[in-house]
Amino acid sequence: MLRQVTLEDIRPIAIGAGILGTGGGGNPYLGGLHLASVIREKGPQAIIDPFDLADDALCCVVGSIGAPTVSIEKLPEGTEMMRAMRELEAHIGRRFDAVAIAEIGGANSMQPLIGGLQAGIPTVDSDSMGRAFPEIQMSSFLFDTSAKAAPLAMVDVADNAALIPAAVSDVWAEKMARNIAVSMGARAGLAGTIMTGAQVKAAGVHYTLSLAHHLGSRVIEAQERKADVPAVVADALDGEVIFCGKITDVDRRVSKGFARGGVRFESYSGADVLEIEFQNEFLIAYINGEIVATVPDLICIVTEEEGEPVTTEVLRYGTRVAVIAAPAPAQLKSGVALDVVGPRAFGYDVDFRPLPGGVIGRSPQRFTTEEKEDTQRSQRELQGNHANPL
Amino acid sequence: MLRQVTLEDIRPIAIGAGILGTGGGGNPYLGGLHLASVIREKGPQAIIDPFDLADDALCCVVGSIGAPTVSIEKLPEGTEMMRAMRELEAHIGRRFDAVAIAEIGGANSMQPLIGGLQAGIPTVDSDSMGRAFPEIQMSSFLFDTSAKAAPLAMVDVADNAALIPAAVSDVWAEKMARNIAVSMGARAGLAGTIMTGAQVKAAGVHYTLSLAHHLGSRVIEAQERKADVPAVVADALDGEVIFCGKITDVDRRVSKGFARGGVRFESYSGADVLEIEFQNEFLIAYINGEIVATVPDLICIVTEEEGEPVTTEVLRYGTRVAVIAAPAPAQLKSGVALDVVGPRAFGYDVDFRPLPGGVIGRSPQRFTTEEKEDTQRSQRELQGNHANPL
Repeated sequence: MLRQVTLEDIRPIAIGAGILGTGGGGNPYLGGLHLASVIREKGPQAIIDPFDLADDALCCVVGSIGAPTVSIEKLPEGTEMMRAMRELEAHIGRRFDAVAIAEIGGANSMQPLIGGLQAGIPTVDSDSMGRAFPEIQMSSFLFDTSAKAAPLAMVDVADNAALIPAAVSDVWAEKMARNIAVSMGARAGLAGTIMTGAQVKAAGVHYTLSLAHHLGSRVIEAQERKADVPAVVADALDGEVIFCGKITDVDRRVSKGFARGGVRFESYSGADVLEIEFQNEFLIAYINGEIVATVPDLICIVTEEEGEPVTTEVLRYGTRVAVIAAPAPAQLKSGVALDVVGPRAFGYDVDFRPLPGGVIGRSPQRFTTEEKEDTQRSQRELQGNHANPL
Repeated sequence: MLRQVTLEDIRPIAIGAGILGTGGGGNPYLGGLHLASVIREKGPQAIIDPFDLADDALCCVVGSIGAPTVSIEKLPEGTEMMRAMRELEAHIGRRFDAVAIAEIGGANSMQPLIGGLQAGIPTVDSDSMGRAFPEIQMSSFLFDTSAKAAPLAMVDVADNAALIPAAVSDVWAEKMARNIAVSMGARAGLAGTIMTGAQVKAAGVHYTLSLAHHLGSRVIEAQERKADVPAVVADALDGEVIFCGKITDVDRRVSKGFARGGVRFESYSGADVLEIEFQNEFLIAYINGEIVATVPDLICIVTEEEGEPVTTEVLRYGTRVAVIAAPAPAQLKSGVALDVVGPRAFGYDVDFRPLPGGVIGRSPQRFTTEEKEDTQRSQRELQGNHANPL
């Protein structure tokens, strides 16, 4: 398990979270540059094992809300996550003890590291999706729990702030937050989903920051030995490569605060066609018109040679890619969860067709062997690092 | 001057504010029904002379934000203004002493009476427009003053709430609030523009609730004696009747939280055409293609026979109307004000062409003679009424 995130950890996390993000979560390369600049200033960020949280610890999640296509054109001011947490703390009259990860996908895997470092609190090695999703209510922290998306706070690159003190439902919180994000230029920093440590432990998809790091490390290692990187990715996620080919069409628009559209791929022989529809994230995949993968299972696009993530905002004609389908974490597959994150929640008149197996959020042992040296560093030493930045 | 608002005062205020609203501010008839139900329950609402406010009294404005066309289809829950004030009070940690009127137009003349009654505080006989405008920053309380539109609070018919703790500018507060209003179904209750009593006195358009009452009373009196009611309206506002005819076309749509469009009138001879463009409110009028009135001057449409207000949401083919142009209050005509409420602020490439004269916000003596009996009731007696509702 990761106990801290240093400069050296950024590249593996960026690759792993870029893949887990299934197209969304914001550009991982830009997120990595941002995180690096903050670590250079403040030192490594401390990571806390979710099961080391006190039951009464106070946590929230942070992340960027908006369209990934905007995130590569409109850069952040840099302290959005901390400022959103501070607005929320002022509203509730308490300080947070740790920050959890809303979604492990893309740059949103790094925002809780950046915000935690700036606020002086550790980041929890748990997220609420094991991937990325476009909407706030699509969170295991909110499925069948007493936690709520609101109160939540949002800030933009300037001095605009907005708070949602209460919402009728998490879906209503999303509707309001999305329109506020549109006002803020389709990109804003958000802090919300206030939880106790006990709630994080009960409802989180655990060790996904470590998983992202592990996945990225395996990609880098496979790149170095010029192995079949997409196959390595599929293996690490207990999934399979479902298609190899070239992007032949991209229909992508920014609509109501999301990047929406579809992308079409053709196999090199020209015989087969893969189509994927997306709303920030890749949601449903068809090969020759037949459904082959459905949300919440992961549909990940990587470059064919390097296995690097291809996110929604960088899809373009001609890119040679491999497409991997991987099973979603168990937390997303309950009946309650599928009502919120299954295909019908996105308007598709099809049932979820679960892929078998899966490692995300399930078995930390699976990806810990090669990170033993991390665990040898004691938590105390790391807390010391945190209090006394390099 | 009005010292309280009773059931008997509602009809004159509804007519007067309907006319002053220049098409916007929400439907005055529905607003009147709402106010009547609250007065029946709690008794008359106390009105405070702006110059009787303590300099350090804490005030805010309240009103509905959204599209007037929505306000006749989506009725309020009824306590929106009070709930918005309570959210704002919780945020700043202080109670308000009085509530001022954001805009005297339409139902928004009554919302501060309803909200004040429910919250147990008096309503100030001042607004910030002397009419209605579509956007929050279009307020004399905000022109060249230290008051700001944010913090502001918004609530919907259910349990959704939103706060804007801070905004880069009042225009940014409007942008965020408008998108939140869209989330809330294009109609929400809003409390904001926190001011001291000294600020209200310095920047308000004063005695406009009394003016609305006076104007409505003159309309009712003229209706009873079957006089030329539109001429009476024009006289009361120091304006003139610029057109009589029938509505021959209405182009009205709800767009981005506003009612937008244009309306066309023909004279009975068919020789002349009047066209008015609106964004919630009537903004610019052309006769046979020539500009005859420009915002912030008031363009008021009334029924030809009864002189009753015709607001944006009830414009329809065939209605026989008189159109009155009247000079705006002085507070809207400074250079600073015209940058915010002049024709160019609404996208028209024309200068403001001020009509001469004007009574709005200027001369309380002008419309007080027939309301002497009101002033005989002492403020103490009214405060007693207020504390012990009928």
